[in-house]
Amino acid sequence: MFKRIFNKKLKNQLHEIIYEADTPAGKLFDVALLILILASIVLVMLESVNAIDAKYHNQLLLAEWIVTILFTLEYIARIISLRKPVNYIFSFYGIIDFLATIPLYISYFFAGSQVLLALRAFRLLRVFRILKLVRFIGEASQLKEALRSSRAKITVFVYTVLILAVIMGTIMYLVEGDRSGFNSIPRSIYWTIVTLTTVGYGDIAPQTALGQAIASLIMIIGYGIIAVPTGIVTAEFAMQGRKKKEIHMNTQSCPSCGVDGHRDDAKHCFDCGTILNDHH
Amino acid sequence: MFKRIFNKKLKNQLHEIIYEADTPAGKLFDVALLILILASIVLVMLESVNAIDAKYHNQLLLAEWIVTILFTLEYIARIISLRKPVNYIFSFYGIIDFLATIPLYISYFFAGSQVLLALRAFRLLRVFRILKLVRFIGEASQLKEALRSSRAKITVFVYTVLILAVIMGTIMYLVEGDRSGFNSIPRSIYWTIVTLTTVGYGDIAPQTALGQAIASLIMIIGYGIIAVPTGIVTAEFAMQGRKKKEIHMNTQSCPSCGVDGHRDDAKHCFDCGTILNDHH
Amino acid sequence: MFKRIFNKKLKNQLHEIIYEADTPAGKLFDVALLILILASIVLVMLESVNAIDAKYHNQLLLAEWIVTILFTLEYIARIISLRKPVNYIFSFYGIIDFLATIPLYISYFFAGSQVLLALRAFRLLRVFRILKLVRFIGEASQLKEALRSSRAKITVFVYTVLILAVIMGTIMYLVEGDRSGFNSIPRSIYWTIVTLTTVGYGDIAPQTALGQAIASLIMIIGYGIIAVPTGIVTAEFAMQGRKKKEIHMNTQSCPSCGVDGHRDDAKHCFDCGTILNDHH
Amino acid sequence: MFKRIFNKKLKNQLHEIIYEADTPAGKLFDVALLILILASIVLVMLESVNAIDAKYHNQLLLAEWIVTILFTLEYIARIISLRKPVNYIFSFYGIIDFLATIPLYISYFFAGSQVLLALRAFRLLRVFRILKLVRFIGEASQLKEALRSSRAKITVFVYTVLILAVIMGTIMYLVEGDRSGFNSIPRSIYWTIVTLTTVGYGDIAPQTALGQAIASLIMIIGYGIIAVPTGIVTAEFAMQGRKKKEIHMNTQSCPSCGVDGHRDDAKHCFDCGTILNDHH
Repeated sequence: MFKRIFNKKLKNQLHEIIYEADTPAGKLFDVALLILILASIVLVMLESVNAIDAKYHNQLLLAEWIVTILFTLEYIARIISLRKPVNYIFSFYGIIDFLATIPLYISYFFAGSQVLLALRAFRLLRVFRILKLVRFIGEASQLKEALRSSRAKITVFVYTVLILAVIMGTIMYLVEGDRSGFNSIPRSIYWTIVTLTTVGYGDIAPQTALGQAIASLIMIIGYGIIAVPTGIVTAEFAMQGRKKKEIHMNTQSCPSCGVDGHRDDAKHCFDCGTILNDHH
Repeated sequence: MFKRIFNKKLKNQLHEIIYEADTPAGKLFDVALLILILASIVLVMLESVNAIDAKYHNQLLLAEWIVTILFTLEYIARIISLRKPVNYIFSFYGIIDFLATIPLYISYFFAGSQVLLALRAFRLLRVFRILKLVRFIGEASQLKEALRSSRAKITVFVYTVLILAVIMGTIMYLVEGDRSGFNSIPRSIYWTIVTLTTVGYGDIAPQTALGQAIASLIMIIGYGIIAVPTGIVTAEFAMQGRKKKEIHMNTQSCPSCGVDGHRDDAKHCFDCGTILNDHH
Repeated sequence: MFKRIFNKKLKNQLHEIIYEADTPAGKLFDVALLILILASIVLVMLESVNAIDAKYHNQLLLAEWIVTILFTLEYIARIISLRKPVNYIFSFYGIIDFLATIPLYISYFFAGSQVLLALRAFRLLRVFRILKLVRFIGEASQLKEALRSSRAKITVFVYTVLILAVIMGTIMYLVEGDRSGFNSIPRSIYWTIVTLTTVGYGDIAPQTALGQAIASLIMIIGYGIIAVPTGIVTAEFAMQGRKKKEIHMNTQSCPSCGVDGHRDDAKHCFDCGTILNDHH
Repeated sequence: MFKRIFNKKLKNQLHEIIYEADTPAGKLFDVALLILILASIVLVMLESVNAIDAKYHNQLLLAEWIVTILFTLEYIARIISLRKPVNYIFSFYGIIDFLATIPLYISYFFAGSQVLLALRAFRLLRVFRILKLVRFIGEASQLKEALRSSRAKITVFVYTVLILAVIMGTIMYLVEGDRSGFNSIPRSIYWTIVTLTTVGYGDIAPQTALGQAIASLIMIIGYGIIAVPTGIVTAEFAMQGRKKKEIHMNTQSCPSCGVDGHRDDAKHCFDCGTILNDHH
C-alpha cells in the first residue's frame, strides 16, 4: 500500500512536470524538450546535406540515436503519468509524439530512410504544444480570430484567383505555344500563379510580344489584387481593435418583449422599458 | 390535352431542377453539373500535356465525347424547359453554354483543334452561374462594392503606373542599349512593369552600373507604390465595416437621466426606462 | 482696324479651343491632341523595335514627319493665341511642348537619333496637361494629399531601407566574395535592394550556405518592412475618410479667451462660456 | 590660470560645435561630418569595384588617408571637449567612432584588408547620430512605437512563417529529390522562404508537376500571409492616429441642456454655456 501511495505521488509529480509549466521543474522540462526538438530538426537538416552526411555520418547517427532514446523515455513518461493514457495515445499530439519517436527503430529493421526522414521533420509540430504551455499564444489566437472572421471573404478571393489563373493560363498557352516553357496548360497555369502572386521565378517567361503584353496585364491585375486580402485582414484587425473599446453590447434578450442587442450595462429594455435581469 | 398538361408539368419540374437550387433534385443537378464542368476542364488540361496525350489519346477523346454529349443534353433541356428560350439563347450564359458544347462537333468537321481548345477552357465561366445559385456570392458582392467605390482611385493609380512604366522603360532602353535584352522600348516597358510590380523574372536584367542604379530606384518606387492600392481598398473595407455597425447607435441623450448611447430605434432609455423623445 | 478686331476675336476663339475644354471644339481639340500624343509614343516604340524599323522604316519616318508638323502647328497656335506668349514659352509645359516638337528638325541637320528619341518619349508628359483639362484629377489630388501628409514618414522609411541595403549589401559582399555576381559592394547593394523589395531577378543569387541564410533574413525583413509604407498610406487614407465625416471641429478661436478647437456647431466657448461668433 | 580659463572656454565652444546643432558652427560641423561619412562610404564602395580599384588605386588610397586623418582629428576633438571622456569612449557611438577611425592604421601594420573593409562600411552607423542632432527622428519614433506595440503579433507571425518554411521545405525536398537544386533540406527551406516572401529568384525552381502544384500552394499561402503583417501594422498606425484625436472628446453630457460630445478639458457646455461638472 505504501508503494501505491508513493507511486501515486510520483505519478502526480511527473504529471505536473510533463504537462504543466507552472513549477520550475515543469518549465525546465519544457525548455529542455524544446531544445531537444530543435536539435533533432537540425540533425535531420544536416543529414540531408550530402557533403556533411558523408563526413560526419557516424556522429549524426549517434546523435539521432540519443534523440530517439530521449524521445522514447519522454513518450513512456507521458503514458505512465496519466491515469487514462488511452485518450492521450490516440489524441493529435499523442500520435505526433509516437511518429516522432519510431522512425529510427523502423529504419533499423527496414531500409528506405527517405520517407522516414519526412516523419522526423514533423517533429517540429511538437513545438506548438510547448509554446502553448508557455502561454505564448495569446496574440496568435487574436490573429486566428481575425483570419477566421474574414474566412468567407478569403475563400471567395482564392477562388477568384484560381479561376483567373486557369483562364489566363490557357490564354498564355495558346499565345506562347511551345516556346519558352508554356508547353502544357497546367504548366501555363503554374506560371500564371507564379506571376499573379508576384513571385516571378523566371524559369518560364513569355518571349512573344503579345505574350509579354498579356503578362504585363496579369502582373498589374496581380498587383491590384494583392490589395484585396490585405484590405480584408486589415479591416478585420482594425475592427477587433475597436470592438475591445466598444464591448457595450451583449446578446441577452428582454424577458418581456424578447428584443436583444442591449448595452452591457443596460438596466431597462430600450424597447419596452422592462427592467432587465442582471446577467453577470 | 392530357399530353399538354403533362408536358407543362414536366416543363415546370425540369425548370425547377435546372434553374433553381431549392429542391434536393435541383441541388443534385447543380453539384453534378459543377463536377462535370470541372472534369471537362481537367480533361482540357490533360490533353494539353504532350506526354499524357500521347499515351491516353483515345481515352481522353472518349471522355471528351461523353462530356460533350452531356453538355448537349443539358443545353437542350435548358431550352425545352423555358417558355421563351430566345432570351436565354442570346443571354451571356446562353452563349457560353453554346460555346461550351460545340467545339468537338466543329473539330469533327474541321481541323485546327488548338483554338477550339481555348473555347473549351472558357467552360470554366459556367462555374460562376452555379455558384450564384448556391448563394455563395454574398461576400463577393461586398468585395465588388468595395472595388467599385474605389474604382476612380484605382483608375488614376493604373494610369500613373503605366505612364511611369513608359518613361522609365524608355530611359532604361537608352541606358542599357542592346545589352541584356533591353533591345526595344516595348520590351523595356515590359521589363519596367515586371520590376514595378515586384514580379522580377530575371529574363531581362540590367547589366550596367547606371542601369542597376535606375532599376534600384524603380524598385523602391514600386515598393512604395504597392502601398497605394492596398491603402485605397483597405480604407474602403474599413469604411464599409463601420457603416454597418454605426446605424444602430445615435448621440441623443435621455431627457430624464441624461445618459447617451442609445440604439437608433430605442423607445425607452436603457438606464432609467423613461420614454425617449422621437428624434427623427 | 477691322482686321485687328477680327484678329482679336479669332485669337480669343483659338485660346478657348486650345486652352479650355468647356466648348465642344475645345473638347474635340483635347481628344485629338491626346490621340496624336499617344500615336507619336507608339511610333517611337515601333521605331525602337529593330525588326519593325527594318521593314517599315520609310512609313514610320513619314508618320513621324506628320506628327512633327502637327505638333509644330499646335505650338505656333498656342503662341499666337496668347497675349503674353513669353510666360508660356518658358513655363514647364511650354518647354515640354518645344522639346516634343524639335527632335526631328534637329535630326535632319545632325546625326545621333538615339538621344533625340528620348526627347520624343517625354512627349508623354504632355498627356498630363490634357487630363487636367478634362477634370480627371479630382481623385488624384486626394491620392496626392494622402501621400503628401505621410511624406515625412515615407522619407524616414526610405532612408532606413537604404541604410539597411548598404549594411546588408556589404555583409553579403564579404560573405559571398566573388562567387555568383557579388563582385563589388555596389552590385551587392543592388542585389540587396532587389531582395528587400521582393523583386528577386535571380541574375545574382547567393550560393554559399551562410549567404543563403543571410538572404533569408533579408527577405523576411523585407517582407515585414513592406507592411510599413502600406500601413502609413492606409492609415492616412482612413483618416481622410474619417475627416470628411467628422467635420465637427473648426479652426476659429474664442474671441474672449483665444482658445481654439471648437465643434463646428458650438455656440459657446467650451473654456470660458463666451458666446462664439457665428462663422458661417 | 589665464590659460586654464581660455582652455575651458575653448572646451565649451568645442563641445557646443561637436555635440550640439543649435549654433551655425554646430550645424556646419554636422553637415561637414555627414558629407565626410558619406564620402568615406562611397570610397569603400569604389575600392570594392575591381575595375575602378585597378585604375585609381593610388587616388583612392590617398582619399582614404585624408578621411582617416579627419576622423582621427574629430575623434580626438570629441575626447578633448568632454570633461569625462571615459563615458564617451565606451558608449555605443564612442566604440563606433573608434572602429570607424582605425582600419587604415591597422592595415598599415597588418595585411588582410577584406575584413577591415567591413569595419569601414559600419561608418554608416555614424550617420544616425547626426540625423538625431538635426531632430529628424520625430516621425521615426512614431514608426518605432507602432512597431513596438505590434511586436508580439509580429513575433508570432515570424515563428509561423519559419515553421511553415521548415515543413514545406522538407516536403519539397522529398518531392523534388535532387532535381533542380532541391538537394538538401536547408536549401529547400531557403527556396521556401524565397517563395513565401514572393521574392522568387528562380535559381532553384520545381521541375516536377507535383512540385509545381505544391509551389503554387505555397505561393498562394504566401500571398495571403503577406496580408497579416500589413494588417497588424496598419491597424496599429490607425489606432495611433485615432488616439491623438480622441483624447480630446469625452462622453459626459451637460447637466443643464444634456448635450454631449464635449472636449475632455471643457469647463463650459459649448451649447448653453453652463459650467460643466468636473468628471475626473
